Amino acid sequence: MSLPEQSTTEAVAVAPKGPQIILTGDRPTGPLHLGHYVGSLRNRVQYQHEFKQFIMLADSQALTDNMDDTNKVHRNVVEVALDYLAVGIDPAKSTILIQSQIPELAELTFYYLNMVTVARLERNPTVKTEIALRGFERDIPAGFLTYPASQAADISAFKATLVPVGEDQIPMIEQTNEIVRRFNRIADKEILVECKALVPDIGRLPGIDGKAKMSKSLGNTINLGASAAEITAAVKKVYTDPLHLRVEDPGHLEGNVAFIYLDAFDPEKDKLEEMKAHYVRGGLGDSIVKKRLELVLQEMLAPIRARREELAQDKGYIMQMLKEGTMRAREVAAQTADEVKAALGLSYF
Amino acid sequence: MSLPEQSTTEAVAVAPKGPQIILTGDRPTGPLHLGHYVGSLRNRVQYQHEFKQFIMLADSQALTDNMDDTNKVHRNVVEVALDYLAVGIDPAKSTILIQSQIPELAELTFYYLNMVTVARLERNPTVKTEIALRGFERDIPAGFLTYPASQAADISAFKATLVPVGEDQIPMIEQTNEIVRRFNRIADKEILVECKALVPDIGRLPGIDGKAKMSKSLGNTINLGASAAEITAAVKKVYTDPLHLRVEDPGHLEGNVAFIYLDAFDPEKDKLEEMKAHYVRGGLGDSIVKKRLELVLQEMLAPIRARREELAQDKGYIMQMLKEGTMRAREVAAQTADEVKAALGLSYF
Repeated sequence: MSLPEQSTTEAVAVAPKGPQIILTGDRPTGPLHLGHYVGSLRNRVQYQHEFKQFIMLADSQALTDNMDDTNKVHRNVVEVALDYLAVGIDPAKSTILIQSQIPELAELTFYYLNMVTVARLERNPTVKTEIALRGFERDIPAGFLTYPASQAADISAFKATLVPVGEDQIPMIEQTNEIVRRFNRIADKEILVECKALVPDIGRLPGIDGKAKMSKSLGNTINLGASAAEITAAVKKVYTDPLHLRVEDPGHLEGNVAFIYLDAFDPEKDKLEEMKAHYVRGGLGDSIVKKRLELVLQEMLAPIRARREELAQDKGYIMQMLKEGTMRAREVAAQTADEVKAALGLSYF
Repeated sequence: MSLPEQSTTEAVAVAPKGPQIILTGDRPTGPLHLGHYVGSLRNRVQYQHEFKQFIMLADSQALTDNMDDTNKVHRNVVEVALDYLAVGIDPAKSTILIQSQIPELAELTFYYLNMVTVARLERNPTVKTEIALRGFERDIPAGFLTYPASQAADISAFKATLVPVGEDQIPMIEQTNEIVRRFNRIADKEILVECKALVPDIGRLPGIDGKAKMSKSLGNTINLGASAAEITAAVKKVYTDPLHLRVEDPGHLEGNVAFIYLDAFDPEKDKLEEMKAHYVRGGLGDSIVKKRLELVLQEMLAPIRARREELAQDKGYIMQMLKEGTMRAREVAAQTADEVKAALGLSYF
């Protein structure tokens, strides 16, 4: 398996001193795809060697807009866990946990709801965008408006100092830090820890159709567990340069998904640069580019798929791994919840 | 101790068939007073013989608007527990629990937040009134807007069928039942139980100054643990009939706090009726009425005070009683939370 170079991140440079703790994760609403791989998974494989890393399967959070299909969330917890292990996340190095199995996260959310105003939640740009995106308008579930408090609970429960997020999620991190500061002021003690956003300097991977976002609901993904035939079919549909009609015409790289993917995944950078130059000056057909892309993706995904299929045979192992990770994580979260409750005068026995 | 007649309640008549479960409780923000006694405590002493009764010290909920004074809440948990036992609530018959020590209540709240919209919460008349009352305006803590979800969690966790509340709290019960129905629809199973408001037919006891509400913050209460001297002083200040200037003048009973209290507490109803008639036709001075009121209150509160002082000597016993009640209650709530989570697909191990 030829892993592409790891993306570096800007925010790492400005992260606080001392040992760092990462909280990251996914809403288990579908299998993970190349967009997840570029945006986060391959970074996690690197981070687990450098940091203490908690990876959360955010099943409770996924319910905020999947109350009509709770089975989907349940089912995808295992699917996403398989994706994690298949790409090289090591449960001995990273703690993989299931959010709903740690009641202390709900407890912290409950208390943090008193530390943020409704007006502040309504002003949160991420929440605003997501509400528009999901078409909630006036029928916003309360759990959706308040999910920044839940996110603050998840992050602070593990005393995470680094949270890998996209640019658009930075307001969530700011809101978490506001809650952390508010709580520490009430407690008159530095119990909770502020965190920093860890924003990858590589942008979001577009869908195979050229749309900005790769997403299951748009049907423009290549899943990490895709079969060889699925990869072939997807590469055929990859959006290139609509103006590049004849082989001899100069081609364009901007918005050309084939080259964006090659930039992200082709381990042979020099040959790629030559190919780009050739494409731009004319004389290189899309079929050659796509052939290269298919080769790169097939080579990259074949071992991931093989490992995924192997692991999928032993569901008992996956469940045991999830249970152990969740128990380890719960100890940490319970400790934080105890500290928070004690500071609020909620210890008695 | 001469207990006055128990108030009967309208809603009892229409309560569902079968064994009933009551959830009731108090926000521990101050010692309980005569208003609590009339409005709820003496009913609870009766209910514990007829129903399974959970009495919740709502410390988490009290924090929604006491984040600046968390010590007050902590301290008053024990004070209110003393009041409970002093008036005759029997921990062997009623389960007394501390809300914050049952994380499952926060968990249920968390899930119920997905089953109610922001618009619906904003329309809740009780929430609207309380927001105005507390002067929150735009700075409403999110936990305050969402507290109907928390209340639904408290009620449904114990599968309570009867909830003693004032008239003004009926919208909260309706909101609970909406959440219960919504959840059962999602679960496609009757897991949660709808409840009925149990509205006492005796109105709210006014403050000694004649204001509609007896409240610590208005300084117009008589606490259940009041000393004999405090009772004497309070009775002196009791509001009567401002038009009753001379003994021989006819007096008025409406709004006359002395008679309202006698109606509530004087066990000798016939003598009270004679006294009222005398007062109305003229010739009965306020001092005689107040003398009777003082006697009634002193006789009623002396044994409560004595028992309260005795119990206060043994804080270890109180804490043990609270711990045992909370543990018993937690088993019930945990069972419900398990059922709820399983129905939402959140069971794995």
